[in-house]
Amino acid sequence: MRIGIAGLGLVGGSLGLALRLHHDVIAFDPAGTGEIAAAEDLAGLLPAELVIIATPLDTVVPTLAALAPLAGTAVLLDVGSVKREVARFAETAPAAARIVGGHPMAGSTVSGLGAARADLFTGRPFLLIPTARSDDAAMALAGEIARAVGAVPTVLSAELHDRAVARLSGLPLLIARALATAGAEFADLAGPGFTDMTRLAGTPKALAEAMLAGNADQIRVALREFRVTLDAAERELG
Amino acid sequence: MRIGIAGLGLVGGSLGLALRLHHDVIAFDPAGTGEIAAAEDLAGLLPAELVIIATPLDTVVPTLAALAPLAGTAVLLDVGSVKREVARFAETAPAAARIVGGHPMAGSTVSGLGAARADLFTGRPFLLIPTARSDDAAMALAGEIARAVGAVPTVLSAELHDRAVARLSGLPLLIARALATAGAEFADLAGPGFTDMTRLAGTPKALAEAMLAGNADQIRVALREFRVTLDAAERELG
Repeated sequence: MRIGIAGLGLVGGSLGLALRLHHDVIAFDPAGTGEIAAAEDLAGLLPAELVIIATPLDTVVPTLAALAPLAGTAVLLDVGSVKREVARFAETAPAAARIVGGHPMAGSTVSGLGAARADLFTGRPFLLIPTARSDDAAMALAGEIARAVGAVPTVLSAELHDRAVARLSGLPLLIARALATAGAEFADLAGPGFTDMTRLAGTPKALAEAMLAGNADQIRVALREFRVTLDAAERELG
Repeated sequence: MRIGIAGLGLVGGSLGLALRLHHDVIAFDPAGTGEIAAAEDLAGLLPAELVIIATPLDTVVPTLAALAPLAGTAVLLDVGSVKREVARFAETAPAAARIVGGHPMAGSTVSGLGAARADLFTGRPFLLIPTARSDDAAMALAGEIARAVGAVPTVLSAELHDRAVARLSGLPLLIARALATAGAEFADLAGPGFTDMTRLAGTPKALAEAMLAGNADQIRVALREFRVTLDAAERELG
């Protein structure tokens, strides 16, 4: 199948490297597309059966908005880590648009096309979030793509997605940063436990801030639950 | 050199596997010593130039107390993760006793001799804590042993050790448990970030409780600092 990819960072690049083994992949990124065939602009990704939007988080919706009127029957699959804005956009998108939200759970603190690898998604959950513009065939196609990159597709709502991601990504990021600060004086003495638990503090700043800002209310709820458990653990310290 | 090891769990067993490549190692553990030469009882580890105490945390001081009167010139090096009780014991130990506190920063959530491996300490900090019964030669010997297992020896006081370990091990353990609880509902969707950050929640319960109870006051201080940073991060969520 012909697949366009808008944005070749770690995720877009890794999807490209994995998918081009069995598909006709073309990509657009102002910074270059490396080994992947290049389109001259966003419109050059079309016609296609699928366009993956893997731009920085704050340009996902503008990119969807630019593609939707031109896309024909192409399925537009975004792979950003916050989903409510995509859901909101889909509700007012052209009636013929086909839009699916996606989120492969395979982030890393390294970033960019240089760090991309075809096996990034192997065995990882690939969350698929239906929107007001997701028909059955579009969802099935998204599931097929998730499987094609070695991931395990799972369908959930935008609300549940953002709740889950607040606990699995946003809260861990805040905790990693606070723990790194609390242990900074002794970081050179750290074993693997501390090192693993502070690794997310190295998340690229732009991605981190977009992830936190886009999901702040759910992260606040998760923080509250986390504090209750931590307070109970402190009381048990005796 | 002749080296005795009391207690062959993950740490004692790994030290034994690493040290027997170049030294004459004998070990005592009621549960057996695997490939390592066995003494019939604690006293059977002597005479030796060094005896490593690698028993469960709550039997470190009793084992030191049993060995000290018999040890002659042998250096007694414990490798437990809390150091103040060892320091306190050393102050009242026989005048001729030679006692050094040690703590290799190479824990794991796997435990037991079956998980031991000779390269567990490669490149890891090996904290050495002088006691009231540590002479220069005893400290030098402990440093030599740390280097012999591939670790990087570092000397610090018992107080600083417990402060460091509260931040590098105790606090991370409490946080990992609380995060695992906060994310439990969605754990099957987790990526590598959440998985790495909750790994310590699997620390064997007996070890975890001994580590927490033995250092509760410092862990409480660390928790307070962690909370201040986390609260500030929450305010910045906007």
